[in-house]
Amino acid sequence: MKPLIKAAVVTASDSRHLDDDVSGTVLVGLLIAAGAEVHERLIVKDDLEELIHTLHELADRDDINLILTTGGTGFAPRDVTPEATRAIIEREAPGIAEAIRRETAAATPMAMLSRGVAGIRGNTLIINFPGSPRGVTECFEIIRPVLGHAIDLLEDRTNH
Amino acid sequence: MKPLIKAAVVTASDSRHLDDDVSGTVLVGLLIAAGAEVHERLIVKDDLEELIHTLHELADRDDINLILTTGGTGFAPRDVTPEATRAIIEREAPGIAEAIRRETAAATPMAMLSRGVAGIRGNTLIINFPGSPRGVTECFEIIRPVLGHAIDLLEDRTNH
Amino acid sequence: MKPLIKAAVVTASDSRHLDDDVSGTVLVGLLIAAGAEVHERLIVKDDLEELIHTLHELADRDDINLILTTGGTGFAPRDVTPEATRAIIEREAPGIAEAIRRETAAATPMAMLSRGVAGIRGNTLIINFPGSPRGVTECFEIIRPVLGHAIDLLEDRTNH
Repeated sequence: MKPLIKAAVVTASDSRHLDDDVSGTVLVGLLIAAGAEVHERLIVKDDLEELIHTLHELADRDDINLILTTGGTGFAPRDVTPEATRAIIEREAPGIAEAIRRETAAATPMAMLSRGVAGIRGNTLIINFPGSPRGVTECFEIIRPVLGHAIDLLEDRTNH
Repeated sequence: MKPLIKAAVVTASDSRHLDDDVSGTVLVGLLIAAGAEVHERLIVKDDLEELIHTLHELADRDDINLILTTGGTGFAPRDVTPEATRAIIEREAPGIAEAIRRETAAATPMAMLSRGVAGIRGNTLIINFPGSPRGVTECFEIIRPVLGHAIDLLEDRTNH
Repeated sequence: MKPLIKAAVVTASDSRHLDDDVSGTVLVGLLIAAGAEVHERLIVKDDLEELIHTLHELADRDDINLILTTGGTGFAPRDVTPEATRAIIEREAPGIAEAIRRETAAATPMAMLSRGVAGIRGNTLIINFPGSPRGVTECFEIIRPVLGHAIDLLEDRTNH
């Protein structure tokens, strides 16, 4: 059976709206191209409490087992997506964030300023991506090979 | 003086027993070949409380300064070895877990799904390895060059 | 406008004094050569409470937006600079510590024993460097390309 990825895309931004959120749209497209279903797409302000609330609700929904965020992972004062993610995950998956930074570091040293986090709540995997369309494309490509297997393990569909 | 490594090997598994725990046996063999003494070997269920209890007791024993775990570092719902480890360490040693993931990533992107942690409690170093015999062999090879120096530092046997 | 880096250098050591603290002196020199102003330089004992107190006070000063520490990041019992740093940061910047370990690992596997942390408190970036003059030089070289941009983002001087 093909792994069933049921995704949500969350854009953290104080200024973007659905009609100009290129990174969110790119992520939805990449997910669908990878065989995932996208069940939710939201734009949330760069506000810690609002982000925690949104990620918490999405992670606990039965029809979602993957949340990809874009934006809010940098050094600006209102970049708090990693802190919101850390607040709701039960088990960290540091290897995903490390791989993203390690592989994007080949292109630019600025990759080390990405503060993205990845982790698990219940059977939902949450991964922070950077805010730019190019950034989400590069990062999705890095995690794409492991996504199906990760979700299968979370859903206890393997004996691995 | 040669560094004196006094090790314990802990296998986290719901199903394995001493007579079919290949990974645990491999780890014991690798440790002895590296000049370490192996003072304890246990199999513990993939249960957070039980793992915390076991790691806590082992770390506080005078005749143990290194605990290598195998298993329970993945994405399955009962994989909680990193959480148990994090609960008992006093000082994290993130570079060890990063090096393991980075160097095994060359062989397979699945390395990024390993959630292993490394850290220190008192004078005991605890390192999480994956569950497969091949995985423990590869990971041991990565940390072997630094193990003696790490234990020497923990035991305050250097002026470094 | 050129980014204005206002730095403090903190040496964690039980034995060093200002007149024999080569690593601290090297760091001051590297910062000035990179265009930064160095507003404070201190030597603090390898004591958790003392380090927390010092880092906390420095981070909250208006004339400091970068704190570089040297020393106390290893495995010796009194190496607690990462723990002190973690205690006062509000947002972790794991990519900086990962990059430092990854890039120095090419020279020696001992790099994996470095437990350094990087993170943000208010508009101040704190980065732990190792204790040796050679170590601080190598590590500074790794972060130098991103330092100006990081401080600009923290000070909200960009629209990135």
